[in-house]
Amino acid sequence: MIPEFQLIRKLTGTVGDDCSIHRIGNREILVTVDSLVEDVHFKRSWANFDLFGEKLAGAALSDIAAMGGKPLFAWIALEVSKKTSQKECRDFYRGLNKVFKRFKITLEGGNTTCSKQFGAHLTVWGECKKGKALCRNTARIGDLVFLIGNLGWAALGLKTKNKKYRNALLKPKPLIKEGQKLSGKKGVHSCIDVSDGLLQDLGHIAHASKVHVLLEADKIPMTPDFIKTTRRLKLDPLKLALTGGEDYALVYTGRHAAGTLIGKVIRGKPGVTLLDKNKKPITFLTKGFQHATRRVP
Amino acid sequence: MIPEFQLIRKLTGTVGDDCSIHRIGNREILVTVDSLVEDVHFKRSWANFDLFGEKLAGAALSDIAAMGGKPLFAWIALEVSKKTSQKECRDFYRGLNKVFKRFKITLEGGNTTCSKQFGAHLTVWGECKKGKALCRNTARIGDLVFLIGNLGWAALGLKTKNKKYRNALLKPKPLIKEGQKLSGKKGVHSCIDVSDGLLQDLGHIAHASKVHVLLEADKIPMTPDFIKTTRRLKLDPLKLALTGGEDYALVYTGRHAAGTLIGKVIRGKPGVTLLDKNKKPITFLTKGFQHATRRVP
Repeated sequence: MIPEFQLIRKLTGTVGDDCSIHRIGNREILVTVDSLVEDVHFKRSWANFDLFGEKLAGAALSDIAAMGGKPLFAWIALEVSKKTSQKECRDFYRGLNKVFKRFKITLEGGNTTCSKQFGAHLTVWGECKKGKALCRNTARIGDLVFLIGNLGWAALGLKTKNKKYRNALLKPKPLIKEGQKLSGKKGVHSCIDVSDGLLQDLGHIAHASKVHVLLEADKIPMTPDFIKTTRRLKLDPLKLALTGGEDYALVYTGRHAAGTLIGKVIRGKPGVTLLDKNKKPITFLTKGFQHATRRVP
Repeated sequence: MIPEFQLIRKLTGTVGDDCSIHRIGNREILVTVDSLVEDVHFKRSWANFDLFGEKLAGAALSDIAAMGGKPLFAWIALEVSKKTSQKECRDFYRGLNKVFKRFKITLEGGNTTCSKQFGAHLTVWGECKKGKALCRNTARIGDLVFLIGNLGWAALGLKTKNKKYRNALLKPKPLIKEGQKLSGKKGVHSCIDVSDGLLQDLGHIAHASKVHVLLEADKIPMTPDFIKTTRRLKLDPLKLALTGGEDYALVYTGRHAAGTLIGKVIRGKPGVTLLDKNKKPITFLTKGFQHATRRVP
């Protein structure tokens, strides 16, 4: 198995922002693709299918948010299995549509096929002002690193039935307004959404921009409840916050202060170094840690 | 299981052309989605993965051809299983790229996930001149019906190892140039590509345009070799030609004569009637015949 970003890089020959960008006249069109597959991204025992629809829509829109865009249209490729009922299809669509209504997106078309499991693949088209799309490869030496949103909550939602963390997993909130605000600001240089875990996603910015990122462990926001719940499950809160995926927080670099300051951009080998409160590198997390590829059981 | 067109209609609330249409300034953008799933659309024993790449690209581009567009960009959602090797991924991409090069399309981005079988879902963006997109719902009473391309060949390719028919199945040729020529002509009123079988696809035109289509059985083009090969397999050549899918021929209505004249459009209940050489309806084919939904074994 080839990890996602490597394969996509091979296929498209690009560094790969969250969306591809197309200029048409005065408009900048952003296009992204996201998938949700049964037994990979969710199990049918978790919840009703409307939540899986919400989950896919939220994840796809987060890519538009990361580029500072406004989502407009969507297309779906749907796979239904023998186990999938009409009700489940309708429920899935209801969840999808709930998010689409909130952001005034229309589902323009799609394709349906049968398969061994339920799956849905969403292509979303958004727009932003000409030259205002937020990219990964534009971080600058001296930039500060800011975070908007929660970290580790969706990962915790996999381990506990606590509604707050479950909702983070199943009803992700794409930070569309926040992204649009950032895209208008001169002091914002690069941005990404945290879909694969903060360390990995900041690594994407570092590699694309050819810079090094210093991340300060004691500045990573964690609520007392998050720490308590994580510890009760015998997990490391910091590790979960830094490597847990699917939270769809936004992390950006620049001088404009919105959100929580968590680090800075320096000259150096592309990558991320995590520092403890004494500014010493914490190596167990940054050395060779890779977000686990979830496999089909 | 809900048949594809019904589900898509439910989801999008539209009659559904092959592509959705978006006007931006002077440009008309066409977007389509197509899927190829292992054990549904192909079996890995059939051929090397590059042919499956060619098959998906050909099928998706055929939707652009049916609207008279020029394809420009593509995005892919890829599903790989434990069985899928890096070589198979590369081969698949090589096949995809072969078609993309021929038509000068760039793969702009995508998403990869794991799954229980290999699957690929392609979103393609094309363009045509403003107001020139060929639709399904614009057939007019009195139109003649013309066919460009072969019928039943891909279906025969499922039953025989004859290279001609195998290639029709695995290396479909999207009729992009032919579609573009049609879209410029005043005498062309509606068009569709034959992906689900001529009877079903003409039915889509009939229902969308609220007209009746008379199809003349003895005008359906069948080569002597096609008839001979089909009969040797104890199949009905006419039935195979009228119901076999995935040939990606173009069928259009109007007064402009290109291709083979196969019928006409009359006032009446939306649907298709097949006539024998004595102009008597052939009922066994038109009454309740439905293209079989291929199921995962």
